[in-house]
Amino acid sequence: MEKLLYTGKAKQMWQTTDPDVLRVVYLDQATALNGKQKDHFVGKGAAANAISTLVFQYLINHGIKTHFLKKVAPNEDLVKKCQMFPLEFVTRNVVAGHFASRYGLQEGQLLVEPVEETFYKSDELDDPFINESATIALKIATHQEIVRMWNICREVNGLLKLLFAKAGLQLVDFKLEFGRLSNGEVVLADEFSPDNCRLWDLSTGQHMDKDVYRRQLADLTQTYAEVLERLQGAIEEENQND
Amino acid sequence: MEKLLYTGKAKQMWQTTDPDVLRVVYLDQATALNGKQKDHFVGKGAAANAISTLVFQYLINHGIKTHFLKKVAPNEDLVKKCQMFPLEFVTRNVVAGHFASRYGLQEGQLLVEPVEETFYKSDELDDPFINESATIALKIATHQEIVRMWNICREVNGLLKLLFAKAGLQLVDFKLEFGRLSNGEVVLADEFSPDNCRLWDLSTGQHMDKDVYRRQLADLTQTYAEVLERLQGAIEEENQND
Ligand SMILES: Nc1ncnc2c1ncn2[C@@H]1O[C@H](COP(=O)(O)OP(=O)(O)O)[C@@H](O)[C@H]1O
Ligand SMILES: Nc1ncnc2c1ncn2[C@@H]1O[C@H](COP(=O)(O)OP(=O)(O)O)[C@@H](O)[C@H]1O
Ligand SMILES: [Mg+2]
Ligand SMILES: [Mg+2]
Repeated sequence: MEKLLYTGKAKQMWQTTDPDVLRVVYLDQATALNGKQKDHFVGKGAAANAISTLVFQYLINHGIKTHFLKKVAPNEDLVKKCQMFPLEFVTRNVVAGHFASRYGLQEGQLLVEPVEETFYKSDELDDPFINESATIALKIATHQEIVRMWNICREVNGLLKLLFAKAGLQLVDFKLEFGRLSNGEVVLADEFSPDNCRLWDLSTGQHMDKDVYRRQLADLTQTYAEVLERLQGAIEEENQND
Repeated sequence: MEKLLYTGKAKQMWQTTDPDVLRVVYLDQATALNGKQKDHFVGKGAAANAISTLVFQYLINHGIKTHFLKKVAPNEDLVKKCQMFPLEFVTRNVVAGHFASRYGLQEGQLLVEPVEETFYKSDELDDPFINESATIALKIATHQEIVRMWNICREVNGLLKLLFAKAGLQLVDFKLEFGRLSNGEVVLADEFSPDNCRLWDLSTGQHMDKDVYRRQLADLTQTYAEVLERLQGAIEEENQND
C-alpha cells in the first residue's frame, strides 16, 4: 500500500513500492502568507506540474543533476527520494517582493550581480533568513554542500534566464530546494513553477506568476497555462534551431 | 562654534574645530526595541564610555586600527571622523537573544565556530538582516571591505574573549561598526560597551550587560560599574605579568 508521507502547501509526497522513489501529487490549491491564506483552483496542480516537468527536463538535458524521474499523470510525477536540506535558495536578478520591502527599494530595479539569499525552511519560525555562517554552525549543511548548491543555482539561473527570455518572460527571482540522494549525491529537488519564481512579461511588465494570486491581479490557472504555452513554444523553437 | 551632527540612541556626535575629529558624548540613557523603549540612567554614559575607552585602548595596544583618539571628559571622547558603513557586524560565540528566538534554539548553547551576521543599520527598516551578496549588490560595501571588516571582527573576538574571561566574564556576542577615514582606510569605530555585547558571569551565569535593562533583571549603571571594575583588574593583572 502506498503511504502518504507529507502534505505540504502545494504538493503531497507518497511512498511507492521502490524505497528510493516517491510519487509527487500537485494539489489544486495556492497559499500565501506562509500558508495563512489558502484557496482552491481547479487545474492549477496540473499546470504547475506541466511547467515544472518541462523545466526539470530542460535542466537535465543541459547537465543539471536533479531528483526528477518522470511525469506519470497530469498532476503526478515520480522523483528520487531525497533527504531534503531545510533551506530555500533564492536567486534575484531584479528587485522585487520581500527584497524590495526589506531594504526600502523600488520594485523593478535590475541587479548588476544576482543577489543570493538562503532561508531556513520552518513554518513555525516563519522561514527566517539564514546565512552561510549560521547554516554551518547549526549543522544544516557543510561549506562544501553550500558551495555545490549555489553553483547549481548559478547554472540554473544562466540557463533559465535565457529560456524564459525566449518565452517573452523576465526571470525576476526564483527559489530552489536541494536534497541528498541515498548515495549521498546532492541534487536539485522540489519543483520549478510560477509558485516559486517571479516572471514578468518582457513587453508589458505584467506579472505571470503567483503574485497574480498574492496581489489579486488575474486568474491563477489561466496565467500558469499561458506560461506553459509560451515555454513550450520557446523549447520547440530551440529544438528546431539545433 | 561646535555643531551637533547627530543624536543617536546612546551618543551625540559633535563637530570640532578639526574637520577630521569628532567629539562623542555618551548619554545617560538606554533604549530597547530599536528605540521604542527609552529610559534615563544617571552615570550610565560615563560608565559605558569608561568601558569603551578601556577596550579601544586595549585593542589599539594589540594592533587593531580604530577611530579612537582620547577620552576628554567622563562621558566624552575625541574620535577620528569616519564615513560610516551602515552595517552592524555581529559575532556570536554562544546562542542568545534574537539568534535563539529566530531559529528556535535554547539560549546558552556554545557555538563550535563563531556565527557572523550583518544587519543593515536603518531605524525605519528595523535593522534588517543582510548578507554579503546583498551588501555588495546594494553598493553598501565591496567584497574587499567586507573581508577586511570580518578579519578585524575575528581579531577583536580572539583578544576580547580572553580579556573578558580574565575578568570572569563570558563574551557571548558583540556588535561592531566600521567606518572609512578621510584617507580611505577602514577602521573600527563606534563603541564597545555592554550596550552592544552580551557578558555572562563565568561562575553564576548572571547577565552583566544591557539585558539587565531589556529583561529588567538588575540596576543598569551598577552592572556597568562592576564590568568596568573587573576589566580594570584584568588589565592590571595582564600588565603585571608582562
Ligand atoms: N525528492 C524529494 N524527496 C523528498 N522530499 C522532497 C523531494 N522534493 C521535494 N520534497 C519536499 O516535499 C515537500 C513538497 O511539498 P510542498 O507542498 O512544496 O511543501 P512545503 O509547504 O513544505 O513547501 C517539501 O517539503 C519539499 O522539501
Ligand atoms: N568615528 C565616527 N565617525 C562618524 N560617525 C560615527 C563614528 N563612530 C560612530 N559613529 C556613528 O555615530 C552614531 C553613534 O551614536 P549612537 O547613539 O550609537 O547611534 P545609533 O542610535 O544610530 O546607533 C552612530 O550612527 C554611529 O554609526
Ligand atoms: Mg514548497
Ligand atoms: Mg549605536
